[in-house]
Amino acid sequence: MTTMATTWILSAQCESRLGSVDVLTRFLKEQHCYITEVSSFDDYRAGQFFIRAAFRPEATGDFDPSAFEADFQERASAFNMTFELTPASKRVKTIIMVSKADHCLNDLLYRHRTGQLPLDIQAIVSNHPDLEPLAQWHGLPYYHFPVTAGTKSSQEAKIRQVIEETEAELVVLARYMQVLSPAMCNLLTGRAINIHHSLLPGFRGARPYHQAYEKGVKMVGATAHYINDDLDEGPIIAQGIEPVDHAHYPEDLVIKGRDIECLTLARAIQLHIERRVFMHSGRTVILKH
Amino acid sequence: MTTMATTWILSAQCESRLGSVDVLTRFLKEQHCYITEVSSFDDYRAGQFFIRAAFRPEATGDFDPSAFEADFQERASAFNMTFELTPASKRVKTIIMVSKADHCLNDLLYRHRTGQLPLDIQAIVSNHPDLEPLAQWHGLPYYHFPVTAGTKSSQEAKIRQVIEETEAELVVLARYMQVLSPAMCNLLTGRAINIHHSLLPGFRGARPYHQAYEKGVKMVGATAHYINDDLDEGPIIAQGIEPVDHAHYPEDLVIKGRDIECLTLARAIQLHIERRVFMHSGRTVILKH
Amino acid sequence: MTTMATTWILSAQCESRLGSVDVLTRFLKEQHCYITEVSSFDDYRAGQFFIRAAFRPEATGDFDPSAFEADFQERASAFNMTFELTPASKRVKTIIMVSKADHCLNDLLYRHRTGQLPLDIQAIVSNHPDLEPLAQWHGLPYYHFPVTAGTKSSQEAKIRQVIEETEAELVVLARYMQVLSPAMCNLLTGRAINIHHSLLPGFRGARPYHQAYEKGVKMVGATAHYINDDLDEGPIIAQGIEPVDHAHYPEDLVIKGRDIECLTLARAIQLHIERRVFMHSGRTVILKH
Amino acid sequence: MTTMATTWILSAQCESRLGSVDVLTRFLKEQHCYITEVSSFDDYRAGQFFIRAAFRPEATGDFDPSAFEADFQERASAFNMTFELTPASKRVKTIIMVSKADHCLNDLLYRHRTGQLPLDIQAIVSNHPDLEPLAQWHGLPYYHFPVTAGTKSSQEAKIRQVIEETEAELVVLARYMQVLSPAMCNLLTGRAINIHHSLLPGFRGARPYHQAYEKGVKMVGATAHYINDDLDEGPIIAQGIEPVDHAHYPEDLVIKGRDIECLTLARAIQLHIERRVFMHSGRTVILKH
Repeated sequence: MTTMATTWILSAQCESRLGSVDVLTRFLKEQHCYITEVSSFDDYRAGQFFIRAAFRPEATGDFDPSAFEADFQERASAFNMTFELTPASKRVKTIIMVSKADHCLNDLLYRHRTGQLPLDIQAIVSNHPDLEPLAQWHGLPYYHFPVTAGTKSSQEAKIRQVIEETEAELVVLARYMQVLSPAMCNLLTGRAINIHHSLLPGFRGARPYHQAYEKGVKMVGATAHYINDDLDEGPIIAQGIEPVDHAHYPEDLVIKGRDIECLTLARAIQLHIERRVFMHSGRTVILKH
Repeated sequence: MTTMATTWILSAQCESRLGSVDVLTRFLKEQHCYITEVSSFDDYRAGQFFIRAAFRPEATGDFDPSAFEADFQERASAFNMTFELTPASKRVKTIIMVSKADHCLNDLLYRHRTGQLPLDIQAIVSNHPDLEPLAQWHGLPYYHFPVTAGTKSSQEAKIRQVIEETEAELVVLARYMQVLSPAMCNLLTGRAINIHHSLLPGFRGARPYHQAYEKGVKMVGATAHYINDDLDEGPIIAQGIEPVDHAHYPEDLVIKGRDIECLTLARAIQLHIERRVFMHSGRTVILKH
Repeated sequence: MTTMATTWILSAQCESRLGSVDVLTRFLKEQHCYITEVSSFDDYRAGQFFIRAAFRPEATGDFDPSAFEADFQERASAFNMTFELTPASKRVKTIIMVSKADHCLNDLLYRHRTGQLPLDIQAIVSNHPDLEPLAQWHGLPYYHFPVTAGTKSSQEAKIRQVIEETEAELVVLARYMQVLSPAMCNLLTGRAINIHHSLLPGFRGARPYHQAYEKGVKMVGATAHYINDDLDEGPIIAQGIEPVDHAHYPEDLVIKGRDIECLTLARAIQLHIERRVFMHSGRTVILKH
Repeated sequence: MTTMATTWILSAQCESRLGSVDVLTRFLKEQHCYITEVSSFDDYRAGQFFIRAAFRPEATGDFDPSAFEADFQERASAFNMTFELTPASKRVKTIIMVSKADHCLNDLLYRHRTGQLPLDIQAIVSNHPDLEPLAQWHGLPYYHFPVTAGTKSSQEAKIRQVIEETEAELVVLARYMQVLSPAMCNLLTGRAINIHHSLLPGFRGARPYHQAYEKGVKMVGATAHYINDDLDEGPIIAQGIEPVDHAHYPEDLVIKGRDIECLTLARAIQLHIERRVFMHSGRTVILKH
């Protein structure tokens, strides 16, 4: 897992076809790049191929990512392969959206501050003022955009503006309790991660812990997923669970669930920024080492 | 957890009321019974009280359970308390119902044969002939009652007959792939345990692993529950999970899920026969040590 | 698990003897106390009995804990029973000791600030100055007592003074990297909890993650235990694990282990302050609901 | 995970060197083999490279593994790369060794009978006669070689003979309670898997569950590892755990541990026969999808 500053990630996707690995690995060899980790997956039902390689340039002289991309584009085109080149050490420009619950935000800011999650947090956006002191202690800008039925659209415009001005590549909904508009969801496809406090598809929608209590389940969970325009239905990245019992009233489940929400969201973000997550047919492919 | 042959279980339930513990523990003291384990739960939302005590008679002379029950009945009546007295070592008369999948049956028969689950298996009942050799090796009667649209009702009558003739106290649906009639469900209320191969309430109904694959979940699970007349909706006793990923096709999930189905079903049966499971408002209370 | 302000905990321990439950439950009944939760354990090998009851006084008039204790002492004496009465909502006066690693401290302060752990943190004590800003943000006193070979004894005296002046009932060693003297360990018997970053008894002593890497284990863990005068050998309260693989170098294990250290330590503290933990023969008995 | 009959596995290992992936993936491309799954690991501390590819020959005409191996040998030699080519569907010739405990054997025979583990079990070897009926029901030869201080060496010779005559590629010690001689261990290096009933390195040697009880741990585990000439110290393949508490006496831990022993051993065998396990410096590298 340890990756040095000089490591790069090349991830790619195309239809299943003979040579789909070779086109990438041969190029890396020719470019004098040592592959420290490669993994691929072939979805035989969908006829789709996914690959991710971490590599270290070994040629003398500087590594020129633009030239690398241009040269590889030629090869990739023959496979209709889409690809992405990223420095492994890149800190991802991120907006975190919250409401009143602070556990996920607190956890993410801790991981951010200690370098455990290589995020470059640009701003905290909230429909409530409550978490501003936490943001301040971490020295981060906090935007309070209260949402009412009448202002939803204009407030979303402000959020969009923050995203655009900061050039945020990732939006994390860390218990943001407002439903985003379809337009907003579409804008953020593949770059907005939400944490839902149930093991989806169980207990979609509001107050999942109360639903879980009523049902009498023996496990509660959390689901981190990309958002799409169908509420709580985007591609799942990570899920976590905690055993519970009859003695956990809804208010206990809320508390009990916090840890697993934090861990599940952090794990999903980690996978995302390590460029391990691919999407296809409403599902994710996650290439781990 | 170790209980000797001379240990008894007294479990009881009533409305929450001052003295609900004392009525039982004082009686046990007066009867010279040493309590090796007691646990209780008070459901403050439902106003219901649950208690379970394991005890060892220490008086000289034999322990007379009938006299014990009669004497305790007087005290319990003042609390409208229902109770049950059972020897801890009692092997529970059980019918196991199966279809074609044999993993749960194989697992239960192993635990039965080695004494790990104190079941007194009376018969295996199936709508298919496939698993008869397995039953035979274990020296157990096997009833093959094929079910068609036209024979469903008459076949259920035969099952009922087996249950009655064997005086079975417990019916285990170990991947029995037929929906029981409401009448049958009512007959078996509180004494029939089903294993469903999903983490309910997610993926109710048919082919849950295929549903799980389509949804792209990162965990599959199993749920052991008492049956009631609402398919896959009875009170949950135990749930188990296994992490999965994109590389698990539906057929892989089916295989992957087997272990967790076996473990979850066995755990639920264990809790049931140790008289740890109480029911209320469609949920279970499970008093563990 | 939900306990209201008016709930009390009575926990007790004695040799196994007929009536050991009744002596406590009958008294609670006589005092018009409604038991919301009781659980007991009888260790048949050690001949020891443990019980914990949560109860709610229902008599008119105020509950007088001193009178309760005095009255119960008479009954308990006949059983050589030791006992403790505590309000369930009591915030426990606590000192947290740290060195440079901040993950456990950060986690505990979050749980403290949000009321999840009912601690009344009196001070943070450290042999390093690094974590003072974190303490300050939470408005907590921070004592920096640097330790060298020559000052160890005098610094421990200062720590003892802080404990005495604050009347701390609990000392949490949240990755405090100094070995305490036997005298200090004895002073803190039963009221100091340490988190060790391995699954004891595996990898005692220094750099357990490096030891784990060398051994090639597939799981790393953490152990929260009471300290005693034998390093990393006190009674275990809680353990947690995380699966790892060959790709986790020692420095990755250090990072990976942080979450499980935080969770395991927090769980142990929770069990301790809920008065669920008993000690006997170098082991713990933990009475859960 | 689903692999069709025509899928092959090519696994290889060499010192870290530019082109170590390319040498293999380019060859597969040239041989018209479609890679359905590839994963590699570079151990930067040891300077070692590991790779595993699953592939499907797509050329017209039969796939000739001997020609493939001969041709690839030339390329591999330039990297001092050792490699192995195996049909994914190959059933591995296996000997299972047992003593009296039958849970792991029962579990393996079930997975064998249902095709879940592609083993070709040649014989069951035991130092006790107890498990012969189980072997017989599965139609498998059973060799009873009782071991005494005086006969140990001659009995091992008989075991060696069985291994040689059956051409067994894998020996599974499914709770075989005899220590093998160093000579035997050396003979079986890399092809004998043992299950030890503790989370190594904790509780090596005899009666680990009793050791665990004395220590008061809150988790028990099992470790599947390759054997070497240092008892319970070979490279670890898989580990599993189960939470336990004070109420588990040693005899309960023995029972509780059975499930996790079965699952851990089965998982290790699965990883081994899928050619995912590599060894280096006393540790394993396990290339999962």
